[in-house]
Amino acid sequence: MKKTKQKVNAAILIIGNEILSGRTQDLNVVTISKWLNDLGVKLEEVRVIPDIEKMIIKTVNKIRKNFNYVFTTGGIGPTHDDITAKSIAKAFNLKYGYHKEAYSILERYYRKNEFSLGRKKMSKMPIKAKLILNPSSGAPGFIVGNVYCLPGVPSILKSMLGGLNNKIKGGKKILSRTVSVQTVESEIAKSLEIVQNKFKKVEIGSYPFFRLGKIGVSLVIRSTEKKQIDDCYKEIISFLKNKKINIIKR
Amino acid sequence: MKKTKQKVNAAILIIGNEILSGRTQDLNVVTISKWLNDLGVKLEEVRVIPDIEKMIIKTVNKIRKNFNYVFTTGGIGPTHDDITAKSIAKAFNLKYGYHKEAYSILERYYRKNEFSLGRKKMSKMPIKAKLILNPSSGAPGFIVGNVYCLPGVPSILKSMLGGLNNKIKGGKKILSRTVSVQTVESEIAKSLEIVQNKFKKVEIGSYPFFRLGKIGVSLVIRSTEKKQIDDCYKEIISFLKNKKINIIKR
Repeated sequence: MKKTKQKVNAAILIIGNEILSGRTQDLNVVTISKWLNDLGVKLEEVRVIPDIEKMIIKTVNKIRKNFNYVFTTGGIGPTHDDITAKSIAKAFNLKYGYHKEAYSILERYYRKNEFSLGRKKMSKMPIKAKLILNPSSGAPGFIVGNVYCLPGVPSILKSMLGGLNNKIKGGKKILSRTVSVQTVESEIAKSLEIVQNKFKKVEIGSYPFFRLGKIGVSLVIRSTEKKQIDDCYKEIISFLKNKKINIIKR
Repeated sequence: MKKTKQKVNAAILIIGNEILSGRTQDLNVVTISKWLNDLGVKLEEVRVIPDIEKMIIKTVNKIRKNFNYVFTTGGIGPTHDDITAKSIAKAFNLKYGYHKEAYSILERYYRKNEFSLGRKKMSKMPIKAKLILNPSSGAPGFIVGNVYCLPGVPSILKSMLGGLNNKIKGGKKILSRTVSVQTVESEIAKSLEIVQNKFKKVEIGSYPFFRLGKIGVSLVIRSTEKKQIDDCYKEIISFLKNKKINIIKR
């Protein structure tokens, strides 16, 4: 039997004044996180920082040492505020310039009279980076070391993740099981704590919701161990029944 | 004339396994950021970390030194995974226990036979913390030093911010002006860069959009200086007209 690395983790670095200013709602964390779950990689930190070179360099160099994978989003377009590629090159002390393969991809993607200086800029990056192909809008992302640089536009980012599946070496897949119940958190807090203390290898999350005039709580059990999840699930169902709490969905 | 502090900044610390797992879409950053803009406080960093005491203590103690204000979201409910209050007490080396005023607020909020142990737990925090009142669901948030602890549920958090307005001392209000145009970024990249280099006190952001089958770019000019924004805006409009680029909205 092949031995799988038990724990593989990742961080996301969002490079985005537009997120910090409240102008744009980030949607990429959910997308990347769910994709990582399926690959057996646990997202353990997200940071949003401004489009400032010094900050990008400092933050990348800090977190790439603490996580197996780092994904950056944003800042790889053609305008003056797109400084991710240059900053990453500086962080790794690598030569920055036109990337041959990226340049030729963009050259083929655009008509001759449309391949402007701004568009050419999108092929500037650490010149020896590996590329992340972009099936939806041409301009590739890139990989340096364990840092994966992706664009900020959610639909484009989404289209690029599939191509990375075989580049990410995950650990055991993170599984989860959810029970939604009609109660308030305080009603089940004590029983949940007892179950959590019994099952050290699962993570039980309790999330209240208020939807369509209904109040409830979703209990989410997460672990890499299916049996642990199932046993934990049984105990939760059992105390819910004892307390005569209505199970909305399981 | 009263002198206002030029630059006041803030960070948000999201304490939330549910955000990292991709289960829940964060909505609080946009809410807090927009509210801070109006108060003249610039959000400069966001971090999302797991519900792990050690991580919370380490991160809070790091960022509270680097920012004027820190807002935490999540982890102040009644269940076992709500460990923010205890962790913050440890970070500041303060006594943790039932907060008299918080306890009496909750005691009045719930009927006698409903004031369970879980609900009582929501009044446990650094015992000398200042409270942040909660007009929508009773349980208060709290303030220790420059750290403001808020709940994770977006509607509740939103209802609590108003009560904080007079507690936050902002600098000059951050103003912005937006022009949306029908073009691609690469078409305007060079001209934008020239304008940005000319106006050092404004921050010009360029954000492509794809909506309802239309492609366009929103240009956002941000600064505390209204005149700078207006002058910068005029130059942008001028080059857009020269390039015969269609202005969708301004």
